[in-house]
Amino acid sequence: MAKIKTAKSKAKLKPGLTSKAQLLKSRLAELRALMRKRKIAAFVLPRQDEYQGEYVAAYAERLKWLTGFGGSWGAAIIGKTKAAIFVDGRYTIQVREQVDVKNFAPHHLIDEPPANWLKENVKRKEVIAFDPRVTSIADARILAKTAEEIGAKLLALPRNLVDEIWKDQPARPSNPVVAHSMAYAGKPAQRKLKDVQVQLEKQNCVATMLGDPASVNWLFNIRGSDVPYTPLVQCYAIVKTKGRAKLFIDPVRLKPALKADLKSLADILHPKFLDKEIAALGRKGARIALDGSSVPENVNQILQRRKATVVEAKDPCTLPKATKNSVEQEGAREAQLRDGAALSNFLCWLAHDAAGGGVNEMGAAAKLRICREATGKLQDLSFETISASGPNAAIPHYHLTQDSARNLKAGEIFLIDSGGQYLDGTTDVTRTVIVGDPTDEMKDRFTRVLKGMIAISRLRFPKGTTGAHIDVLARESLWRAGFDFDHGTGHGVGSYLSVHEGPQRISKASHVKLEPGMIISNEPGYYKAGHFGIRIENLLLVSEASSIAGGERDMLGFETLTLAPIDRKLIDTSLMTRDELHWLDDYHAQVLLELSPLVEPESRGWLTEACASLR
Amino acid sequence: MAKIKTAKSKAKLKPGLTSKAQLLKSRLAELRALMRKRKIAAFVLPRQDEYQGEYVAAYAERLKWLTGFGGSWGAAIIGKTKAAIFVDGRYTIQVREQVDVKNFAPHHLIDEPPANWLKENVKRKEVIAFDPRVTSIADARILAKTAEEIGAKLLALPRNLVDEIWKDQPARPSNPVVAHSMAYAGKPAQRKLKDVQVQLEKQNCVATMLGDPASVNWLFNIRGSDVPYTPLVQCYAIVKTKGRAKLFIDPVRLKPALKADLKSLADILHPKFLDKEIAALGRKGARIALDGSSVPENVNQILQRRKATVVEAKDPCTLPKATKNSVEQEGAREAQLRDGAALSNFLCWLAHDAAGGGVNEMGAAAKLRICREATGKLQDLSFETISASGPNAAIPHYHLTQDSARNLKAGEIFLIDSGGQYLDGTTDVTRTVIVGDPTDEMKDRFTRVLKGMIAISRLRFPKGTTGAHIDVLARESLWRAGFDFDHGTGHGVGSYLSVHEGPQRISKASHVKLEPGMIISNEPGYYKAGHFGIRIENLLLVSEASSIAGGERDMLGFETLTLAPIDRKLIDTSLMTRDELHWLDDYHAQVLLELSPLVEPESRGWLTEACASLR
Repeated sequence: MAKIKTAKSKAKLKPGLTSKAQLLKSRLAELRALMRKRKIAAFVLPRQDEYQGEYVAAYAERLKWLTGFGGSWGAAIIGKTKAAIFVDGRYTIQVREQVDVKNFAPHHLIDEPPANWLKENVKRKEVIAFDPRVTSIADARILAKTAEEIGAKLLALPRNLVDEIWKDQPARPSNPVVAHSMAYAGKPAQRKLKDVQVQLEKQNCVATMLGDPASVNWLFNIRGSDVPYTPLVQCYAIVKTKGRAKLFIDPVRLKPALKADLKSLADILHPKFLDKEIAALGRKGARIALDGSSVPENVNQILQRRKATVVEAKDPCTLPKATKNSVEQEGAREAQLRDGAALSNFLCWLAHDAAGGGVNEMGAAAKLRICREATGKLQDLSFETISASGPNAAIPHYHLTQDSARNLKAGEIFLIDSGGQYLDGTTDVTRTVIVGDPTDEMKDRFTRVLKGMIAISRLRFPKGTTGAHIDVLARESLWRAGFDFDHGTGHGVGSYLSVHEGPQRISKASHVKLEPGMIISNEPGYYKAGHFGIRIENLLLVSEASSIAGGERDMLGFETLTLAPIDRKLIDTSLMTRDELHWLDDYHAQVLLELSPLVEPESRGWLTEACASLR
Repeated sequence: MAKIKTAKSKAKLKPGLTSKAQLLKSRLAELRALMRKRKIAAFVLPRQDEYQGEYVAAYAERLKWLTGFGGSWGAAIIGKTKAAIFVDGRYTIQVREQVDVKNFAPHHLIDEPPANWLKENVKRKEVIAFDPRVTSIADARILAKTAEEIGAKLLALPRNLVDEIWKDQPARPSNPVVAHSMAYAGKPAQRKLKDVQVQLEKQNCVATMLGDPASVNWLFNIRGSDVPYTPLVQCYAIVKTKGRAKLFIDPVRLKPALKADLKSLADILHPKFLDKEIAALGRKGARIALDGSSVPENVNQILQRRKATVVEAKDPCTLPKATKNSVEQEGAREAQLRDGAALSNFLCWLAHDAAGGGVNEMGAAAKLRICREATGKLQDLSFETISASGPNAAIPHYHLTQDSARNLKAGEIFLIDSGGQYLDGTTDVTRTVIVGDPTDEMKDRFTRVLKGMIAISRLRFPKGTTGAHIDVLARESLWRAGFDFDHGTGHGVGSYLSVHEGPQRISKASHVKLEPGMIISNEPGYYKAGHFGIRIENLLLVSEASSIAGGERDMLGFETLTLAPIDRKLIDTSLMTRDELHWLDDYHAQVLLELSPLVEPESRGWLTEACASLR
């Protein structure tokens, strides 16, 4: 949905490209005029909004409005005469397509960080300005360190400079907030609140402010539609060890029944009262727990001025939100079944229609959306579908547009990475299929990726194991042959919330323990630039530790949630061990058993063939 | 050698056990009298000496002298009426055998740390005393934090209290220092010194003090015999960015030729001048790099008093010492060949003599020592041999004594973990063999351990990979069946230096990158308490990144250094993959090829059988 909208708006822009460039140039000039007036030497503008999330509402597309850049992560710094835009490896091509590099020089966010640019372009005693509402405490700390090293002054702006000059800035979201029913949430908000209070008491803190809307949505069992793909209502909350919590949502967004329910749990306040309420918390010596990665610097500054003691602590909702309760787990199974059947209908259609050459990437994505909508339960996609054939599949974060869309061709690989938002769960699945016949090289790489995927899937492991400990299993068979992939192996997934949810990941850098109830993706890949790309992704549920017959220690394990056939034509069985073939045959048998009653009758024959034993 | 000495002295003590207990009691009383005189409420006595190493010289066995405890790691705290001894999991049994628990209550060093004991037993304004010469900066920091939390005063003693009352305390080591020839060291001290200076310059520091004797021995290409098993001379050094280094060794320990060589590199000073020289470094604002884990707190205090800026930095020798140069690598190969032949002669002897029941653990260890000595090149063992049969093998850190030594019996497993110090390299190898015939259970566990050992051995991996990333490979096949082992998978090994050398390890907690030239052990295990134990250990050399035929990325890998047969009778080939069997057959073929010319003629037949193909 949002994807198609993006494509349309791009298409519309094309004829007026020059005027668009002129518009962007004039916005930059206007911003610089304002900076001169305020004696600001550099203005730091991150893509993040007040809620630090992956997606932002239209009013908060400040970076895009000023620079043209539409990626999900990045930042600009506007200096007196020079300006730069910082993006990561996913966006190095896209940034050059969307941004006039004469106005904003592109930089790599990690290799050439903003701090370096500031050191080169800002002088002692000059002013670096930032908006402390869209900057997390952690990011503000880095800015402060940089300013100190330069000897520059760091100015926390009372209002974002872009908001001052953006005349037709869209209004903030005012869509109604909806209750997330106990049938899906599984645990009443009252009990969740109590658990957070217990945690606060252990930390000897009187209160915390929750800056991550996903935490607040989870805590109060509410959802919304403020941003694309994630069913969030953007809001904050204050939870106190003693006394009532405060929920910051414009009360007009709540229907009477929901308002009454929420009022039984917390005071409902308009977001404009946040600063005042934070100030009221900030008595001298009062210990307030804040998560520096999600709470805005503005909150920290108010508390510091009031001499409160800010205790850096992890968001107390993050871990309980990640470890799904039994109702959420059951919901996830249901959602995956439904989603797997939809995907199978799509794959069957693709197997029949793609070889003819009449299907393009955009049509395939649209067809898959139709298959998901046919379940009658799709609320939204969970992210913009990656539908990529041939060389496009070699771009792990391929951004599909009408311009880029290729036709599927025989002899080429087609990769589709997609997911749905259902009330009972969020899905995310990638399948890679061959149109026509694969080369030996494709089969070799696909089989190595599959071996990695299977190694994670069938692992048993003791408590205390982290994503960094197991990531190697997804790569070992690629490494042996001199290959690798440049992304993590897996990310956490929410329950009718964000498809990218922390704290757990499978990656070399993730030191969070894997706990029963966590949902995590398992998606190794291989990318040959200019040729083809492979990724196979299932969602896994970390299962409770259980004993193994004849074993001595209880072990955790993974339950595979995603059910959809893996393309047998791309497998070189001679590279696989007996145990791996056994796992795959068992998996396909389960896919057939569980999906057969759910797929369209005309897909059943195809599904049976797609799930046939390889041994 | 040291092992047998320990055993003898224990045997001698036995008849006079009561008088020994009385002696320890009177020492404790004398210490408490001194504490009362000095108004000290608690005295902290670690096992470590002034050099923070694994082994200490006789004069520094203060903990053993006071408490009777002879383990390699631990600490005591003596209070006014109560006292405690803190040991880790390796020593929970041993501490109760050696220490009178009425005088020193045993505590677990990790689970019930000294800080807790101090908080319970020391009151506000009372004095906690410690010796800042035997306490690292890092450990002193923990003590200071604890004292602050209690509100107690922390007193850095000018002299260790034990030294004050230990009348016949042995003299400090005065054995001659020897040069470690370029034929083994591979790099002149002058160039190593230059490299350290370049590092210091990068850190913008004027000097560093090296507190780890292994670093100083490596830097100046010298060795000694001050402690058992590790060919160290205990000494410190100061390296300056500009100007001559200072080496703190009693000059009488240096023969004229070596003294002249060392004088060309550094000023040689008696250790008693260290404090004065540190003070001379400590001008206001002078940046001095110190490694808090190896430099004594005393040095830090002198610099703090002089208002110098102490910059916490890793010991600059640790990483270059760990990454062996080509001469050291070649030396390691030679040492391993020699050692593998000696071990094979032993294993052949064992295969013929053990089944009869006439061999006990102590005799086996002595025989292996004789086999190593027969090479004519053994300088010392590299640690106390673990020679364990049946249930004794289930104790990973089994401490062999005349009392504990069991006879090897048919149907039982025998585990021997040992190593030698040779001028060209340090070895460490474990083999587990069956006397007679194994049970299916033994074969299953042995094969799982072997699969883990092979998975690490044959891994290829990209730069940046750490021990924490690969540790899982050693455990995966055990985990699958509900088993695990409670120690790390591997530790770094020195070059004619300590058999336990940092910074690299293979363990869940090791975040140091594996670099070409590092030597690391690969030793998964399995232990069934009261029944049997298994460990298979080879040393590996991290090889340079190289391209793989048909691959895209250069990968590092491991070269297996240790050569000795792995007991084929304990292998269940049905549990192994083709690739694993292939690796093992190739390994055995290499063992046979390389060792056959080196073993005793009467071992050759046995070696050929032991190395036969399993496919």
